Amino acid sequence: MLRPSADAASEPKRGELALIRQIRSRAGQSGSSALRLGVGDDCALLRPRSGQELAVTTDLTVCGRHFRLDWHTPESVGHRALARGLSDLAAMGAAPVAAFLSLGLPRELATPKGRRTGANSWVTRFFDGLMALADACKTPLAGGDLSETTVPLAGIVLIGSVPRGTAMLRSTARPGDLLYVTGTLGGGAASLPHLDRLAKKQNGKSPGLNGLSPAQIPKDLKALLARHLYPQPRLAQGLRLRSQGLASAAMDMSDGLSSDLAHICEESRVAAEIDPTLLPVHPGASLEYALHGGDDYELLFTAKPGVRMPKKIAGVPITRIGRILRARAGRPTVALLTLNGPQPLKAEGWEHFS
Amino acid sequence: MLRPSADAASEPKRGELALIRQIRSRAGQSGSSALRLGVGDDCALLRPRSGQELAVTTDLTVCGRHFRLDWHTPESVGHRALARGLSDLAAMGAAPVAAFLSLGLPRELATPKGRRTGANSWVTRFFDGLMALADACKTPLAGGDLSETTVPLAGIVLIGSVPRGTAMLRSTARPGDLLYVTGTLGGGAASLPHLDRLAKKQNGKSPGLNGLSPAQIPKDLKALLARHLYPQPRLAQGLRLRSQGLASAAMDMSDGLSSDLAHICEESRVAAEIDPTLLPVHPGASLEYALHGGDDYELLFTAKPGVRMPKKIAGVPITRIGRILRARAGRPTVALLTLNGPQPLKAEGWEHFS
Repeated sequence: MLRPSADAASEPKRGELALIRQIRSRAGQSGSSALRLGVGDDCALLRPRSGQELAVTTDLTVCGRHFRLDWHTPESVGHRALARGLSDLAAMGAAPVAAFLSLGLPRELATPKGRRTGANSWVTRFFDGLMALADACKTPLAGGDLSETTVPLAGIVLIGSVPRGTAMLRSTARPGDLLYVTGTLGGGAASLPHLDRLAKKQNGKSPGLNGLSPAQIPKDLKALLARHLYPQPRLAQGLRLRSQGLASAAMDMSDGLSSDLAHICEESRVAAEIDPTLLPVHPGASLEYALHGGDDYELLFTAKPGVRMPKKIAGVPITRIGRILRARAGRPTVALLTLNGPQPLKAEGWEHFS
Repeated sequence: MLRPSADAASEPKRGELALIRQIRSRAGQSGSSALRLGVGDDCALLRPRSGQELAVTTDLTVCGRHFRLDWHTPESVGHRALARGLSDLAAMGAAPVAAFLSLGLPRELATPKGRRTGANSWVTRFFDGLMALADACKTPLAGGDLSETTVPLAGIVLIGSVPRGTAMLRSTARPGDLLYVTGTLGGGAASLPHLDRLAKKQNGKSPGLNGLSPAQIPKDLKALLARHLYPQPRLAQGLRLRSQGLASAAMDMSDGLSSDLAHICEESRVAAEIDPTLLPVHPGASLEYALHGGDDYELLFTAKPGVRMPKKIAGVPITRIGRILRARAGRPTVALLTLNGPQPLKAEGWEHFS
């Protein structure tokens, strides 16, 4: 499983093999009783507990689309690649069992140590970021492979466990349900113009390959930028919503509220309206960012009107932002309440790096 | 799950959404009782039968490393991407449960129909190839995502099912065991110089993007080139070896016999010797290709000397090629028997597209 790609095995490439040994030794440090066999064979073996279903999600993170070498530190790229998958598990209320990584890197990023400096290189720092989040979320890295590619990219697979028949779905929202979000909205996208400006200032004409170091980020922006650089998957919140039966439907918000709510409506065949005055807009973000920004990795969920919803779950605020309506001819799928009545809200994601 | 990537959702891209609808309608046509929920939610849900373990494997297929647009038809690229993962399941004796695909494509390959011609475009033909093999192997496509990338690539995840504690491993070969392979060796790699020559002849100075059409392959080369273009994962053979307890260790050969046998020896802490006169060299291939060629996707396995090994399994010949020895100081890990006694066999994979 964790091995050079078929053709890369042609000549034993010391750097690549050393890298795989390094990854192997770090993988499997956080154990999981459901993971029987990790790296080193054709497949990893998972032994699900009886009565459990497995949730599986795959995500591809590509340089230039999901991150930039001159904005994101390697640690942030590793963190974000894993966070995307963990957030999908959180949305279903699943507990992580194992992660798998397919990493594609140009040769200059794939050597464990810098040739001249001896400092930890890009790939080592990428794993630092990925494994820090994996350890925090008790998610063993159970396998993966490594290829040489012209553009850096990471394909991540997350497998989670959820009691049979209890996973939270997108397709089960019903008219009358109330609409909620965890945390705050808009902070992820509101970070981007700052990152752009800071990177331009630092890099001048030769963009750095190791992103903006923490020292290059002004103190007053650190909290905002962390929303984008180190998003926290809402695993504890998803688990609690699921195990206490609080939510009638759920998904994670990676594309932005307007896009993601449209997905819930489509899958549940309902409509929805949002009260903009209720939105928990992140400090430093605008309503625009909160509605369309994406990249927040909060949970969007619905609940029956009678449910007593906690104000916080595991320290993260829960906010009611609207409600679910019957789908009807002439009614917009997603509407924003305004002084002039409900106005259609178009699904508009955010083009991150264009 | 099967959705545009976060940022790609920004403007509704008709082509991309149409593509996802097309994939969705084709996925899930081959059912699997263990697959409860496929494309359309944050995760797919698998319900393993009790007493079963799940085998998980991930593989990244990258243009320029694992295929070439001017050699391989889109159907062959789709077939090969899936075959690599299925072959990993076969090696463990696992039955396929579900496949997941992360596809990265430049925009010009990602439109379902050619703008001018109306003919099926690259991505549609890629899915034709992938789904044909998926259907033949009863493997539902349960999810995935789509990103725009500069270089075409496909990350594939295969999940299989195997009765608890019975998966065939690489680490369980013992001194005295006999060494076997399924099928023939060297055909995959022996195809490459032919593909190179044919592509140069056809393409002249402007390489085609749709590979060599079947009409461009001379009749007498069709059988040989099929070994590379449409490798058949040895699922039936793996299942039978596992269920009848015939093998003591197994793996699939993607890198070539010399490399892959070294992996078994390393994981099992044993040595091995190969008798070159026994090797089932594919017609048109050389001993060199059979030893180091790779890309054959046959199974390499060991069995206790007392086991009565069938001559064929599901129509594919089984051939004894050597034996497992105790690892000893001064003894090469993998040796080739010659008239001058055993000679060390260096693990040399084949650099496919350099």
